[in-house]
Amino acid sequence: MTTNKTFVYEMEVRDYECDMQGIVNNAVYQNYFEHARHKLLLDCGQDFAEHTQNGLHLVVVRAEIDYRAPLASGDTFRVVSYIDQKSRLKMRFNQHIERMSDGKLTTKAVVIATGVQDGRPYIPQFLWDALL
Amino acid sequence: MTTNKTFVYEMEVRDYECDMQGIVNNAVYQNYFEHARHKLLLDCGQDFAEHTQNGLHLVVVRAEIDYRAPLASGDTFRVVSYIDQKSRLKMRFNQHIERMSDGKLTTKAVVIATGVQDGRPYIPQFLWDALL
Amino acid sequence: MTTNKTFVYEMEVRDYECDMQGIVNNAVYQNYFEHARHKLLLDCGQDFAEHTQNGLHLVVVRAEIDYRAPLASGDTFRVVSYIDQKSRLKMRFNQHIERMSDGKLTTKAVVIATGVQDGRPYIPQFLWDALL
Amino acid sequence: MTTNKTFVYEMEVRDYECDMQGIVNNAVYQNYFEHARHKLLLDCGQDFAEHTQNGLHLVVVRAEIDYRAPLASGDTFRVVSYIDQKSRLKMRFNQHIERMSDGKLTTKAVVIATGVQDGRPYIPQFLWDALL
Repeated sequence: MTTNKTFVYEMEVRDYECDMQGIVNNAVYQNYFEHARHKLLLDCGQDFAEHTQNGLHLVVVRAEIDYRAPLASGDTFRVVSYIDQKSRLKMRFNQHIERMSDGKLTTKAVVIATGVQDGRPYIPQFLWDALL
Repeated sequence: MTTNKTFVYEMEVRDYECDMQGIVNNAVYQNYFEHARHKLLLDCGQDFAEHTQNGLHLVVVRAEIDYRAPLASGDTFRVVSYIDQKSRLKMRFNQHIERMSDGKLTTKAVVIATGVQDGRPYIPQFLWDALL
Repeated sequence: MTTNKTFVYEMEVRDYECDMQGIVNNAVYQNYFEHARHKLLLDCGQDFAEHTQNGLHLVVVRAEIDYRAPLASGDTFRVVSYIDQKSRLKMRFNQHIERMSDGKLTTKAVVIATGVQDGRPYIPQFLWDALL
Repeated sequence: MTTNKTFVYEMEVRDYECDMQGIVNNAVYQNYFEHARHKLLLDCGQDFAEHTQNGLHLVVVRAEIDYRAPLASGDTFRVVSYIDQKSRLKMRFNQHIERMSDGKLTTKAVVIATGVQDGRPYIPQFLWDALL
């Protein structure tokens, strides 16, 4: 299935996100990628917080992250996110981060997510319609 | 001593910053305030990370935070920061957060910081000159 | 009103909690203090998460934190927490952190909290009974 | 190459680690896994912070995480970590999390790390000797 949506979101490193090595800590990239996914959802008219309140929980089931170059204090970057349908119950987000100073691809991720409602995997058709 | 610099910085709530109550966790406001202080420093030509690398450590010695109203998913807000000189070795940041949807003051902070070089309190004159 | 409960909880610094200065970031102490408060609550038979699910939201309204000495990688420490009643609707937690290697008091906090139910300040009597 | 070291480390969920879904946020598992790896290193006589200060930077180059079941407030768990040598310049950590209440495997990770000194990939022999 082809990728239907691309979303580009600009962010900048905040100093508290850097660890004792002086670079952004590994875990923080998951924050960046999550925020970019939620902005992509919003861009498609889908509000993660609203779905959560209504009992539709969008959850990550797998994340693969390749760290190619570090981000550090002062860096601005864009998070590029593509979404497609991996299976009936699985959304796949292909995401990467480009440093704005030199265009370098610093980080790549594939994130698989599903929906859970009343304790069972479920992605309503309206969500697929909005996202793809 | 009067306040010499004001700095306004716009941010937005990220969903990972919200805790199980569905609102921004208390500790996160210190992240917001810190980031806004570092942007104020940059606006004055002072780079926190560069000072750190050069052995001049700017550290918080006291923080007072009043939480008046919560921020939640989707909220955008501005952090307003004023800096003045509390004493020869103490910078004082008066900061507050205004929610952009309604202008409500949600959070207020007074943060006292100093510099440390070679293990001793020290704020170089060039820093005062740049900040005040 | 006198302090009725004291609670001591041992923790250790985790490397991801340290920032580019190689010491624990300021905001992280609020995490430490919050976790210690929730353990104190549990010790009194009160579960923060359960109260949240039942619509009783315990929230911080003010925090004062004095940073006297930094914690760094490898440090273990104890968080000492006292609770008393500041007013009918305000709990006061006096908390401090002692580094275990030398007993040094590194950080002190006064945290004022209240309860909110159905949008209004409310602390049920059973909570006061359990905590004081 | 066979796995030479196993390390088991017990932790518990802290409420600030839970997001608006009431479960531990995805990014936090990387914190858990990192902390467990650093404890494994310490158990082998290798101190991450000391290596960092000496200019030997241990960095993650890839992380794969499978989220099978959520952790929530009150959960205690053990992080089980195995290390082996993926290649001359790559350490591989196989890690997983078991919830202590029922022994359920909730999260699995494979984390590939390398060392960097003076800007170049480098893992000193003494590190291999200590870890394998």
